[in-house]
Amino acid sequence: MPSHADRIGGSAGKGKKSRRGRLSIVGIGPGGLNQMTGRACEVINKADCVIGNGLYLDQIAPLLNGKEVIRSSMGNEVDRAKQAVELACSRMVAVVSGGDPGVYGMASIVLEVLERSGLALPVEVVPGVTAAMAAASRLGSPLSGDFAVISLSDLLTPREEIERRLELAFRMGVPVVLYNPRSRGRRDHLAAALTLAARHLPPETPVGIVKNAFRDGEEVAVTTLRSALDKTGEVDMHSTVIIGGHGSRIWRGEEHEQGIITPRGYERKYLY
Amino acid sequence: MPSHADRIGGSAGKGKKSRRGRLSIVGIGPGGLNQMTGRACEVINKADCVIGNGLYLDQIAPLLNGKEVIRSSMGNEVDRAKQAVELACSRMVAVVSGGDPGVYGMASIVLEVLERSGLALPVEVVPGVTAAMAAASRLGSPLSGDFAVISLSDLLTPREEIERRLELAFRMGVPVVLYNPRSRGRRDHLAAALTLAARHLPPETPVGIVKNAFRDGEEVAVTTLRSALDKTGEVDMHSTVIIGGHGSRIWRGEEHEQGIITPRGYERKYLY
Repeated sequence: MPSHADRIGGSAGKGKKSRRGRLSIVGIGPGGLNQMTGRACEVINKADCVIGNGLYLDQIAPLLNGKEVIRSSMGNEVDRAKQAVELACSRMVAVVSGGDPGVYGMASIVLEVLERSGLALPVEVVPGVTAAMAAASRLGSPLSGDFAVISLSDLLTPREEIERRLELAFRMGVPVVLYNPRSRGRRDHLAAALTLAARHLPPETPVGIVKNAFRDGEEVAVTTLRSALDKTGEVDMHSTVIIGGHGSRIWRGEEHEQGIITPRGYERKYLY
Repeated sequence: MPSHADRIGGSAGKGKKSRRGRLSIVGIGPGGLNQMTGRACEVINKADCVIGNGLYLDQIAPLLNGKEVIRSSMGNEVDRAKQAVELACSRMVAVVSGGDPGVYGMASIVLEVLERSGLALPVEVVPGVTAAMAAASRLGSPLSGDFAVISLSDLLTPREEIERRLELAFRMGVPVVLYNPRSRGRRDHLAAALTLAARHLPPETPVGIVKNAFRDGEEVAVTTLRSALDKTGEVDMHSTVIIGGHGSRIWRGEEHEQGIITPRGYERKYLY
């Protein structure tokens, strides 16, 4: 459909016939090259052009030698997606996304823009380790069974809807992972979520805060619903917060190490 | 604490002082070596001894040359965890878990057994790409925003509790990922879950079924709540089912390719 290619920018189909491009949306994991999958590394290695938020491009800088690199910034996701689709008409394009591209990442907007363009391009979503799994691994095993994932950012979801979902998730009694728990523009959302949690869960319910998981400046804190409100000042936009469910408890490890586990229920069936 | 080491099996502290061991619980991703993280490969490379379910050991066979390999089977998770803790008193032990070890995996039971042993061993949980992310990537981007993860297996959770959680999750209106959707012993759980979903979501809500994601025999099917009941026969214990939420829709890609996306809401703020 060359007319669509012209409409979205015309990098394909003009002049001599160019080779067909390819679009990949790649999860680069939480941070640190060794938290990426082999497939994610491979796709970036083969790409002519890598597009992403500066923070994520810095994270994979050693993989970018000799490639065209297009740095974007938070809030420019729609333009970034359009540019990626346009370039992928004739080139191998990798759009990088922190964690997993399908969880608050670039996959949905790139696929939406591609669909609207009407272009028939081969596209691949490369999964990665999302922040929920990364934070959980640093805490022990807080998400061992069922769980819910909710973002506290009201940029794209109305605040009333976020609170409605939180209420139902806490009533489920399962651990709840909070993405985007706090930013300068949303200082009180986390406190509101914790207050709501305290209406449905006992005060000794464990709460884990993981800042910069697998990146420089990593910090892990374990607290309880009773004390978590005092800790909200330590939480920032690079943090993930996990509120335990029924059955979640503090785990005690080597020396004074603390974590959180949510037992899966083997204790109801086995002696150990 | 040598007395505890004696109690759980005594492989440490007997005879001359042995070197200190280490315990890692490693997520090997959905399948295919290139879906593992670099850290997961590294930890398995350094391990003296690798313990896991036969299915997962087969998946990483090329990494196991020269190592002691202990094959276990489904249902023996508690014994496997005890054996791993015992061996890790003096050796580098990797317990492998499909997907992410913190999501219906080995992390919680190993940490529970370690805590009860009273042994002070260094322990690491290595995150991986869990089935929810793997299945989502094959479908497009069905989980782009908030979502819930629920297992339909009633081996460790009573069925009434599973249905209570499902009901609340569907009321949240977010996509719901079903793990363990069907097995020989639980033929009707998936049908019950779909029927419950249909009470809260419109019949055109997309449903994705991914069997053997990133493994031999991969199959991806996209349907709707209206038609999903006819497809439950195709679902098995190696499948993941994703039921869309409000806003989820069928995505149309190259030629007749179909997927599912849950737009994040950019369309409310931007023109594209």
